[in-house]
Amino acid sequence: MGSGFRLKFGTVAIIVQTVFIVLFATLTEYDWRAHPVYSDPNHPSYTNDTNLAFQEENESISHYVGRKYPPFQDVHVMIFIGFGFLMTFLRRYGYSAVSMNMFISSLLIQWAMLVRGCVYEGIFKGNKFQVRLEEMVTADFASATVLISFGAVLGRTSPLQLLIMGLIEVIVAQVNGYVCHDVLHAVDVGESMYIHAFGAYFGLAVSRVLYNKHAQSHHKGESCYHSDLFSMIGTIFLWMYWPSFNGGGSEGDEQHRAYINTYLSLCACTVITFAITALTDKKGKFTMEFIQNATLAGGVAVGTTANMPLQPYGAIIMGCVAGLISCIGYRYITEFLAEKLKIQDTCGVHNLHGMPGVLAAIAGAVMAAMATQEDWGVSLYEIFPYRAPKPDDITNEFQRQFPSVDVETGKGWSAGKQGGYQALALAVTLGIAIVSGFITGLILKIPIFDQVNDEEELFEDMMFWNVPEEEEDGKSEVELAARKYVQDKNV
Amino acid sequence: MGSGFRLKFGTVAIIVQTVFIVLFATLTEYDWRAHPVYSDPNHPSYTNDTNLAFQEENESISHYVGRKYPPFQDVHVMIFIGFGFLMTFLRRYGYSAVSMNMFISSLLIQWAMLVRGCVYEGIFKGNKFQVRLEEMVTADFASATVLISFGAVLGRTSPLQLLIMGLIEVIVAQVNGYVCHDVLHAVDVGESMYIHAFGAYFGLAVSRVLYNKHAQSHHKGESCYHSDLFSMIGTIFLWMYWPSFNGGGSEGDEQHRAYINTYLSLCACTVITFAITALTDKKGKFTMEFIQNATLAGGVAVGTTANMPLQPYGAIIMGCVAGLISCIGYRYITEFLAEKLKIQDTCGVHNLHGMPGVLAAIAGAVMAAMATQEDWGVSLYEIFPYRAPKPDDITNEFQRQFPSVDVETGKGWSAGKQGGYQALALAVTLGIAIVSGFITGLILKIPIFDQVNDEEELFEDMMFWNVPEEEEDGKSEVELAARKYVQDKNV
Amino acid sequence: MGSGFRLKFGTVAIIVQTVFIVLFATLTEYDWRAHPVYSDPNHPSYTNDTNLAFQEENESISHYVGRKYPPFQDVHVMIFIGFGFLMTFLRRYGYSAVSMNMFISSLLIQWAMLVRGCVYEGIFKGNKFQVRLEEMVTADFASATVLISFGAVLGRTSPLQLLIMGLIEVIVAQVNGYVCHDVLHAVDVGESMYIHAFGAYFGLAVSRVLYNKHAQSHHKGESCYHSDLFSMIGTIFLWMYWPSFNGGGSEGDEQHRAYINTYLSLCACTVITFAITALTDKKGKFTMEFIQNATLAGGVAVGTTANMPLQPYGAIIMGCVAGLISCIGYRYITEFLAEKLKIQDTCGVHNLHGMPGVLAAIAGAVMAAMATQEDWGVSLYEIFPYRAPKPDDITNEFQRQFPSVDVETGKGWSAGKQGGYQALALAVTLGIAIVSGFITGLILKIPIFDQVNDEEELFEDMMFWNVPEEEEDGKSEVELAARKYVQDKNV
Repeated sequence: MGSGFRLKFGTVAIIVQTVFIVLFATLTEYDWRAHPVYSDPNHPSYTNDTNLAFQEENESISHYVGRKYPPFQDVHVMIFIGFGFLMTFLRRYGYSAVSMNMFISSLLIQWAMLVRGCVYEGIFKGNKFQVRLEEMVTADFASATVLISFGAVLGRTSPLQLLIMGLIEVIVAQVNGYVCHDVLHAVDVGESMYIHAFGAYFGLAVSRVLYNKHAQSHHKGESCYHSDLFSMIGTIFLWMYWPSFNGGGSEGDEQHRAYINTYLSLCACTVITFAITALTDKKGKFTMEFIQNATLAGGVAVGTTANMPLQPYGAIIMGCVAGLISCIGYRYITEFLAEKLKIQDTCGVHNLHGMPGVLAAIAGAVMAAMATQEDWGVSLYEIFPYRAPKPDDITNEFQRQFPSVDVETGKGWSAGKQGGYQALALAVTLGIAIVSGFITGLILKIPIFDQVNDEEELFEDMMFWNVPEEEEDGKSEVELAARKYVQDKNV
Repeated sequence: MGSGFRLKFGTVAIIVQTVFIVLFATLTEYDWRAHPVYSDPNHPSYTNDTNLAFQEENESISHYVGRKYPPFQDVHVMIFIGFGFLMTFLRRYGYSAVSMNMFISSLLIQWAMLVRGCVYEGIFKGNKFQVRLEEMVTADFASATVLISFGAVLGRTSPLQLLIMGLIEVIVAQVNGYVCHDVLHAVDVGESMYIHAFGAYFGLAVSRVLYNKHAQSHHKGESCYHSDLFSMIGTIFLWMYWPSFNGGGSEGDEQHRAYINTYLSLCACTVITFAITALTDKKGKFTMEFIQNATLAGGVAVGTTANMPLQPYGAIIMGCVAGLISCIGYRYITEFLAEKLKIQDTCGVHNLHGMPGVLAAIAGAVMAAMATQEDWGVSLYEIFPYRAPKPDDITNEFQRQFPSVDVETGKGWSAGKQGGYQALALAVTLGIAIVSGFITGLILKIPIFDQVNDEEELFEDMMFWNVPEEEEDGKSEVELAARKYVQDKNV
Repeated sequence: MGSGFRLKFGTVAIIVQTVFIVLFATLTEYDWRAHPVYSDPNHPSYTNDTNLAFQEENESISHYVGRKYPPFQDVHVMIFIGFGFLMTFLRRYGYSAVSMNMFISSLLIQWAMLVRGCVYEGIFKGNKFQVRLEEMVTADFASATVLISFGAVLGRTSPLQLLIMGLIEVIVAQVNGYVCHDVLHAVDVGESMYIHAFGAYFGLAVSRVLYNKHAQSHHKGESCYHSDLFSMIGTIFLWMYWPSFNGGGSEGDEQHRAYINTYLSLCACTVITFAITALTDKKGKFTMEFIQNATLAGGVAVGTTANMPLQPYGAIIMGCVAGLISCIGYRYITEFLAEKLKIQDTCGVHNLHGMPGVLAAIAGAVMAAMATQEDWGVSLYEIFPYRAPKPDDITNEFQRQFPSVDVETGKGWSAGKQGGYQALALAVTLGIAIVSGFITGLILKIPIFDQVNDEEELFEDMMFWNVPEEEEDGKSEVELAARKYVQDKNV
């Protein structure tokens, strides 16, 4: 894999970035909260013309920015430090893990805004995509979907393959999110279905197509002492900021519950993970792979229901189940998938994002099917707007009790109907992820994308990086020391 | 120490977590700010029934969550990244340091909520513990107490011992906090007495009982080049976010002062630490252990007085004294304690948390004894509510001057009395910590808890972890390289 | 370089810190928002005397602190983790990089407050410097200027030289900022001119004077595998939090734009950096040095214009150009500067801060020269107050349209005049930086400051640090393993 490959990657990246510039220039603009404030009544962006209104507007923008920015930065840390360092556990793939994570995210953040403009804001009808803080969070989320898939194929793909995979996956994932959320009206506050389950099963389908027998039990497919510690930096930042992932987009009591539920679920999941990793080990010892990954399953599993009134003990149970499932996955299922189904999964995303994402979806469907006005109060209609009575059925008593509910949006859905649509969204998500992942895998196998094939190319930074000299040419610090000692001894 | 040990740890962890589920289900609920909003006047959680009230409530919840969440996340980072990585300095104990830190905290966060429900909220009287953001900070704080004690015995205990120690210490520390704060009315905004001094002296008492002669000058009780850099990640996150630790729970000008005082104290402490580590070294060089730890003493030392009007120069002096004391501790006292008193202290918590915590308490008592209405204004009564006149002695003039002071709470305490109670709280804290730590140490020596005893078991991850293969079976990367070179040479 | 050196450093540090205490005691006080709240009408700090006013004041302080604190902490992380770890890329200089970064910043944060008190708040007229959250951000910024210069001379100076350099540079940089901002009225919201360009060219001038021929192609002037990963921790935290650097000091829509523009610019810059590093490499591989540094140039380049209505595509173009320039710098210019002009630049600050800072300044001048009321609305007068009509020329129509503009401050500047003054500020900044840097370099060459000269002293922690024993005395872990293996074999 010579410089021909690299010319291809560099050229494609520059072309894509140039196209992005043109698309951003024609299809996007600042949201009104980031526009210069206008006051000419004839100006298209005219807003207000009194001093008071000015101040109110500025105040409301400051308020908006002040509230949305800290959780955005938490999510940002999860994407770039969290996912980036989590994947540095391989002994010779740290450069690629943290850097390709950064490259993919930087590219797809831009792409996600353009795709969302098409899917959600009617760019085709002449509207422009409005760039604002909330869309920065959503763009980060969109790249997270691809980073999860990246985890499944880590060490076995070329940068060009990742670039192509990311461009495709963002489109499909956004369409899936639109179908499930805007058509089926299935809610998923922490996006456990639309990001975690989707990213995992898409990535596993890609991985199945790219199956490489040399990657089985590859000696570089493992960690070393310090690479495990680098990986823990990623784990812990993901773990700590996960409440912002699940709750950053909510408001009021919903946000407060999302923070509490995610926090408690993660704590319980961590305790269970430590117990299970020891109990199921033949020597009775802990294994870092479990601690680095399964401790996070509690965040995924509570994602769909984070803003619902699970109660503290409910969140803790969710975390315990997630930890149990994830540990069982790492202990038994990963090997089964690789050996029997030829589905290799470098980071075990099936155990961290796949199964816990499905668990989250099921929990969401069950909660939706059990939700009553008596227990949930007005939150029932805030979380599931279609549960509100149809406009014609709204009574004065209902309006008096729930003055904040929009009387136009209700569809009179029953609990069972909402639960059913939640379950349907899971099925749709899994179906779209697996089929589109499989097709994407076939595309990536086209030789032009430089599939990594040979044994010595796998899990190895030296393929794509100028690794510091002494290690590249076979004279590592270690060998130099050995050489020096033997020479000294012989003399 | 075979798999029998591990079965024990895993089983105990699962049992404890299961008991937590039952206790959370019966003894806790969401705080009203996390409850679904109810509007049925007959519902027990009924709050409001007008649109305006709804909006106001939601607004006030959003406000509460928006203000409390960023400092909570800072503290969260201190607990999991800060303490976790600070303790990775040992060359062969990094897995255990960062992971057991995570395990203990995850377990004790839950335990702390239950214990606080008993101590503060009258669970025994049928009340439920109200889970909310502020209690998430407090639960993180409670686990910090135990992490400090963990630092004293780092590398010399089994996971099961740590679990047991943590469960006991949280109970005792919460009772101590209740006695000092709610009975003696001694204030401690950054909890330098109730967390830092308590955790340090409790841990040292445990360490005294667990004294192990093999741990003296153990070659694995030291750092290596990269483990020192991992440790600095912990140091710097603790250092940066310490203002949130000392000020996150305050409001208004008190919070602002806490942020400023902690920031300046840490800067000054850092300068002094660099000076002293060089000046007292026989070769005149810097030592990483000092930089990793003594630079933080300024945060501990200003903890009790952080919200008081120390003035910027006062905060700087506090930091200088703290750095000086802590450096002297690392240079001279740690060795003295270990050799003469058989009190081993792996991380030097006596120098970082113990002595600076006592300094903080003394400074708090002195400030309290000197506080006057003339200099402190209304802050006097906000910080020390008992200093306000008794309800019968409240004058119209006082009420006109200090309309925000609650006229019911004053006890007419003099400055000297408040100072005396502050000093008494220190004595009580030290007494309870040392006695309960000693007893806990005796409990941990019961053989069932798998005390680490032999020389090769100390400071060694391989005892409890599956360390990557080549390093475990004696064929480290280093040795393989040496072997390869020698073989190449011989052929 | 024996202990004599160290006695000097320690003694100077203590003296400087002691002088700081005296200066803080006489020249600074809390800002009113951190003062104890007074209510005695005769008290000099008297503020209000009604309950309502009290509450309003407390509310406004809480508001102020709640809004300013999260971006402050982001900047704080950039200074201590970001710059600190970015510079750990050298294989044997990690202790010095992260620790001297911490020492310098801690010292200069205090110094910056005193210097700013003199320059901005008229300490010489008897005023006191008001310490508050915003000044904590500014003090962090002031130390960033010096950390950039530190990057230019990394591995080639003594701690004492850095201390002296920092004390001088903070004074000159603050005076430069005052001249450019308060006299020339050139705006620079992210301080790309006043911090990045200034720090880079000052540092390069110092480096020219301290030229050391042994440092050319020094084998320790490079990275090793794990030191590159430590460095990436710094890179990514700088990258993520850069929006807070550029926008933390703004409000409302300006702040929102600063966040969006910086975010998009960095994403685009990262994509371009990956493309260029591969395209210009002879083997077609990526190089970590580029990823660690050039990816950040987008944050510098958009600094001056971050709060201006660049539009999303404008921010993306800025990032692309920055990445291109910075990569060209790392590939070709650094070597040219070192070999032809004898300007050594260890971290390549010319490529990351120098050229992108100049680009930012030029972009700012161009934007200013093109700014019209039609496109910018009231933001024109908020960003460039001198563009507003002179008080005598203010019309009723203007006041009706822009009620928030202060009618006293306008000078009626044209777009071209504002643009010209922006360009002038760049020229002034470069001139002052280079001249003062050159003079500072000459001062640092005075032998009393212990210039690092010999080949084995360069880029080597062992000069100033007690490095863990086995590595210092020639018996590294590596050698011990080699020795053991050979011995085993021979026996």
